[in-house]
Amino acid sequence: MYRSHSCGELNASNINQEVTLSGWVQKIRDKGFMIWVDLRDRYGITQLIFDEQRTPKEIVSKAKTLGREFVIQVKGTVIERESKNPNIPTGDIEILVQEFAILNEAIVPPFTIEDETDGGEDIRMKYRYLDIRRNPVKNNLMFRHQVGMKVRNYLSEEGFIEVETPYLIKSTPEGARDFVVPSRMNEGQFYALPQSPQTFKQLLMVGGMDKYFQIVKCFRDEDLRADRQPEFTQIDCEMAFVEQEDILTIFEGLTRHLIKEIKGIEISDFPRMTYNQAMKTYGNDKPDIRFGMKFGELNEVTQHKDFKVFNEAELVVGIAVPGGASYTRKEIDKLIDWVKRPQVGALGMVYVKCNDDSTYKSSVDKFYDQEDLAKWAQVTGAQAGDLICVLSGQTNKVRAQLSALRMEMAERLGLRNPEEFAPLWVVDFPLLEWDEETERYHAMHHPFTSPKPEDISLLDSKPGEVRANAYDLVLNGNEIGGGSIRIHDKETQALMFDHLGFTPEEAKEQFGFLMDAFQYGAPPHGGIAFGFDRLVSILGGQETIRDFIAFPKNNSGRDVMIDAPATIDTDQLKELNIKLDL
Amino acid sequence: MYRSHSCGELNASNINQEVTLSGWVQKIRDKGFMIWVDLRDRYGITQLIFDEQRTPKEIVSKAKTLGREFVIQVKGTVIERESKNPNIPTGDIEILVQEFAILNEAIVPPFTIEDETDGGEDIRMKYRYLDIRRNPVKNNLMFRHQVGMKVRNYLSEEGFIEVETPYLIKSTPEGARDFVVPSRMNEGQFYALPQSPQTFKQLLMVGGMDKYFQIVKCFRDEDLRADRQPEFTQIDCEMAFVEQEDILTIFEGLTRHLIKEIKGIEISDFPRMTYNQAMKTYGNDKPDIRFGMKFGELNEVTQHKDFKVFNEAELVVGIAVPGGASYTRKEIDKLIDWVKRPQVGALGMVYVKCNDDSTYKSSVDKFYDQEDLAKWAQVTGAQAGDLICVLSGQTNKVRAQLSALRMEMAERLGLRNPEEFAPLWVVDFPLLEWDEETERYHAMHHPFTSPKPEDISLLDSKPGEVRANAYDLVLNGNEIGGGSIRIHDKETQALMFDHLGFTPEEAKEQFGFLMDAFQYGAPPHGGIAFGFDRLVSILGGQETIRDFIAFPKNNSGRDVMIDAPATIDTDQLKELNIKLDL
Repeated sequence: MYRSHSCGELNASNINQEVTLSGWVQKIRDKGFMIWVDLRDRYGITQLIFDEQRTPKEIVSKAKTLGREFVIQVKGTVIERESKNPNIPTGDIEILVQEFAILNEAIVPPFTIEDETDGGEDIRMKYRYLDIRRNPVKNNLMFRHQVGMKVRNYLSEEGFIEVETPYLIKSTPEGARDFVVPSRMNEGQFYALPQSPQTFKQLLMVGGMDKYFQIVKCFRDEDLRADRQPEFTQIDCEMAFVEQEDILTIFEGLTRHLIKEIKGIEISDFPRMTYNQAMKTYGNDKPDIRFGMKFGELNEVTQHKDFKVFNEAELVVGIAVPGGASYTRKEIDKLIDWVKRPQVGALGMVYVKCNDDSTYKSSVDKFYDQEDLAKWAQVTGAQAGDLICVLSGQTNKVRAQLSALRMEMAERLGLRNPEEFAPLWVVDFPLLEWDEETERYHAMHHPFTSPKPEDISLLDSKPGEVRANAYDLVLNGNEIGGGSIRIHDKETQALMFDHLGFTPEEAKEQFGFLMDAFQYGAPPHGGIAFGFDRLVSILGGQETIRDFIAFPKNNSGRDVMIDAPATIDTDQLKELNIKLDL
Repeated sequence: MYRSHSCGELNASNINQEVTLSGWVQKIRDKGFMIWVDLRDRYGITQLIFDEQRTPKEIVSKAKTLGREFVIQVKGTVIERESKNPNIPTGDIEILVQEFAILNEAIVPPFTIEDETDGGEDIRMKYRYLDIRRNPVKNNLMFRHQVGMKVRNYLSEEGFIEVETPYLIKSTPEGARDFVVPSRMNEGQFYALPQSPQTFKQLLMVGGMDKYFQIVKCFRDEDLRADRQPEFTQIDCEMAFVEQEDILTIFEGLTRHLIKEIKGIEISDFPRMTYNQAMKTYGNDKPDIRFGMKFGELNEVTQHKDFKVFNEAELVVGIAVPGGASYTRKEIDKLIDWVKRPQVGALGMVYVKCNDDSTYKSSVDKFYDQEDLAKWAQVTGAQAGDLICVLSGQTNKVRAQLSALRMEMAERLGLRNPEEFAPLWVVDFPLLEWDEETERYHAMHHPFTSPKPEDISLLDSKPGEVRANAYDLVLNGNEIGGGSIRIHDKETQALMFDHLGFTPEEAKEQFGFLMDAFQYGAPPHGGIAFGFDRLVSILGGQETIRDFIAFPKNNSGRDVMIDAPATIDTDQLKELNIKLDL
């Protein structure tokens, strides 16, 4: 037996007990006649003491050979500590060592195994197994496990069945790029790794499985933006005989449950907002509603004067930044530079300081009088002391720009409290979105999403205005889940494929099995999928998903620890009937 | 709202309630003036009644258009049934329908959606979504979910953390063939899908994660034998600071827990047996110990007479088949034919009938007298009325042959009761096994398995005799789990790779990251992995794993439902920098 206790559990109640501990040498303090060693395992740290007066001599000499991260096993007596450490649970005691064994030596690690390490991102990725020894990473992984268990138990108790869907499936050109897997047994053919279990979960509904979920890996061969991973985990759910309302209710319940169980917070308000409302009020379909700075549309109160910039703009819109009236000219200029950065892309920014004496000072005083500016303040909800920031231009662009500014200001003002949770549903998403590159409409959610019945008649005349029974769950400005009511009849599905530019043959080849299935009594159904990596990171109060993944890949899709991907043998290629084409 | 209740929950206590149900039309009985419909959903069946006297006329006419597997929604009143059906929970009531809607029509399914279907295996695979509507398949999937939840909750409560390891990893030539995934972003390079998370779980141990588990998909590109799948699910576990005993204790606990919770059976006896014992006593490293027919080795009591066949055999071994003395000459001849089939491969079989009057009648009476045969009976434990079956030849072969016969006889005699559970540990597996084809030793478990320290000295002289700290969990004659204590130091690992024929360069290229990791303080560790598909099917009292997988592949690795694998676009190949080489 390697240990009688973990390094996190001994305290004053164990004094005088003989114990055996195993773990890693975290720290050594050698005072010559006395050596203290901090011994670490997953559960905590326990202080060991080697004392020339009380510890066998050869044990003390052996202790002097220890180095950081050596793995040792010690036997000794729990004794009261002279100088107690109130910051750790084991801080009242130490172990007077009588025997010990070095289980494995360690060379000096490339970075310190401390909460605040000296290692940079790259080196920590390469030695991820050492990074996992650090509390912040270890705790994130344990946290992830807890969230996963709570999700599973909640859904299972709600009658959902976890069904494993296959990983070796079929490539479909719709959506993102697939990872493919050459088949050795079926020459010249390939499997694809699933971007999601979408069609399988719909087939489970056709199969009567009614309430399905799965925590499952999904794969997308995309050019990686920051914080995207080629493989990611999804909480995938589907229900039959439901309307949108049923789905929102169940998953609102799950969200409340998680936030309550994990953070101890009761969510009082769980608002819903249409996509159009969200875009109008926050310039964004995943608004962070932990704070205000709602958009005020100013066209009506700005386009009556000679200010050409506003008069020619499709949209003039502003937000009131709390306390911003005190900004210096220099600070405001910096803000203007910020919105003009290419990442944001505004051409400029008009501002209004709302002074404490109820007067206004703006960058467009030449065009607008106090009465005008008072109206702006009213529309944006600005109070004395605020700074109104106004952008103008083409609607979609200016909304995105002002949304970026709103988030930036919230960040600077400390309004994005990671310990506060503000979920909401955004509903009534458009069915289709225009793609400039391919010059055709694409499914905004996916091609299986049901249009709202009352909007189907618009499919030919105004496809961009057709709304879908599609919804996103947004938490603190992040989309953590999205889903829809699906099409469940062959005719509507065929109509949809037609509008997405599939020929009937293409539709049949790629999704024939689904269209076939719809003929055999498909029930009405819908579902949702959550980004599990994202959900866990937000619940954990952080925004980088990589910190919550045990072995993440870098931005080139490489695992730098195991050095994958890698070349493979020519024989292996031959067996798979492929060759390189570089 | 599509339903107020499921089709499985209404009973006499609901009489007079107005309810809404949705589901599939299972059966229609049209008596002209009255129509009964069995409505089915995941939860059960409820009888609907359309009665010309009590149901609106247009509803009755519409009911006459229904066909099997139509999806309908009905509103009506729960009433007492005239002729009750005691076989189903809803058998006391029926629904007098007032309103109904056809939610989706259905064409005639290609096989009947009944517990006993008329559909063959192939057609049911192609329309798996219809097969899943049948109780046997549906119940298997729900059973699988329950087992998964119980495993997760048990391990989580024991302090194990589920950590997701990556699916896009690196190909290694050791072991079975990998499925590979071309990397678009890393030209000419490939990921591999994991055959198991072996190296990652070991790295988690190096990372201090101490108790890890994961229910995870694994992949092997093997030529499929019956009931093998290219993707399969594993309960993968690893622990640090443990000896073999600790691991056996924990997973014996899990096994007992599952059998208790799921089958209501307390396992009293959980024996352990060495590999050598198992081979000697059952001719098999995964013996079914629900029944006897233990091997009796007969060399000593047979090789003193002139029977050349036995005298020249490396091993003469027999079993006593209970009640077999009553077999006719014809039946015994059939049995001899059975052992001579190429799948078994025996050259012949000697038999001894143990008569009720304590005399013996054997096929080798010419060579052996009653006294000899009495000794055979003693060694094989044969009682009056039994038939002793004796095979002889080269030890390994004859053991396999007699083991096959033993299983066959147990099957015929009904001794393999699927509701009885007899687990055992088989321990002390050989470290290496000789491979005739490649003419070298291979790791019997895998190259990370630790040899028993006391046997390391044999590595050079008698590699085949080195025992490993490796163990299998066997349940009812199936290996459901296997694991080992791992090597945790760089030197032993290098020694092992050397004995497996790796050059130091090859070892470094393929497993350098693991050997590196061992330098930074690797703890002693070990683990186990369970075949989840197999475990679930055995707990479910069946032996075909395919019946417990939602969307299995056929023996050519094809998903015949979605028709995968399939060809992919040339553009897609180009992007991946590969071309076909047929």
